[in-house]
Amino acid sequence: MIRTAVATDVPVIHAMIRELAEYEKALHEAKATEEQLREALFGENPALFGLIAEDDATGEPVGFALWFRNFSTWRGTHGIYLEDLYVRPESRGGGHGKALLLELARIAVERGYSRVEWSVLDWNQPSIDFYKSIGAVSMDEWTVYRLTDEALASAGRR
Amino acid sequence: MIRTAVATDVPVIHAMIRELAEYEKALHEAKATEEQLREALFGENPALFGLIAEDDATGEPVGFALWFRNFSTWRGTHGIYLEDLYVRPESRGGGHGKALLLELARIAVERGYSRVEWSVLDWNQPSIDFYKSIGAVSMDEWTVYRLTDEALASAGRR
Repeated sequence: MIRTAVATDVPVIHAMIRELAEYEKALHEAKATEEQLREALFGENPALFGLIAEDDATGEPVGFALWFRNFSTWRGTHGIYLEDLYVRPESRGGGHGKALLLELARIAVERGYSRVEWSVLDWNQPSIDFYKSIGAVSMDEWTVYRLTDEALASAGRR
Repeated sequence: MIRTAVATDVPVIHAMIRELAEYEKALHEAKATEEQLREALFGENPALFGLIAEDDATGEPVGFALWFRNFSTWRGTHGIYLEDLYVRPESRGGGHGKALLLELARIAVERGYSRVEWSVLDWNQPSIDFYKSIGAVSMDEWTVYRLTDEALASAGRR
């Protein structure tokens, strides 16, 4: 049901990233190309990793997870940061999302990683309820700051 | 003033991680060993990277930054996530922290990375003011969820 992504999955991962962006009404912001994804996932020494959820009956990809390694300076170990998790609308409610998340937990435990982390929109209560049900804790006191676009270019020139 | 960390910096990075944890009254949580840091920073295909801030006069390390690569599925590029930034108390106010952050922006621009990101405690107003002054934006709508310890072990067994 869940398997590691391979190079021939790049087109379907690309398509699903765009479906997710469209669902978020931000298709114009989804600028990643198949080439960029292929390089990041399957180039030399990749720093991005993928899982595919397959339909049990047809074997067709119905969802994906993309993740990278973070690091805890307190634990001294890497962890998993789940950047994107998506299940196609027609396949929701079948446990694919949960299976993807639990597979990441299994990978983390197997490798001695201390954490699996991801971000959720504050208004997404159904997801928050699910995350809490499996024992995830919210890092309520922390906010991520981002330097990008012109501000990044300007800071990089100083 | 700012340079890439090298293997002989591991003991001073380890010491500064513990100083930072002590400042945060969490020294008991700072369990990382020098061996773990050496492996993560200077083992095969490292996924953790470091910068050292040096005192201009003495050349002694007075601060550090540790970072790893994240990934934007919209941009199709890696970015920099700054996990830890620390300047020793006696060297604060000398611009070392800002210099570390700007060096990360420079590295990001040079490599075509689209972002530099980091987390800040919501009550740390002086830092927030500084981050906003260089054009960083807060990801206010998002909260990080973390699966760790027993909850992670339990999820990994399902």
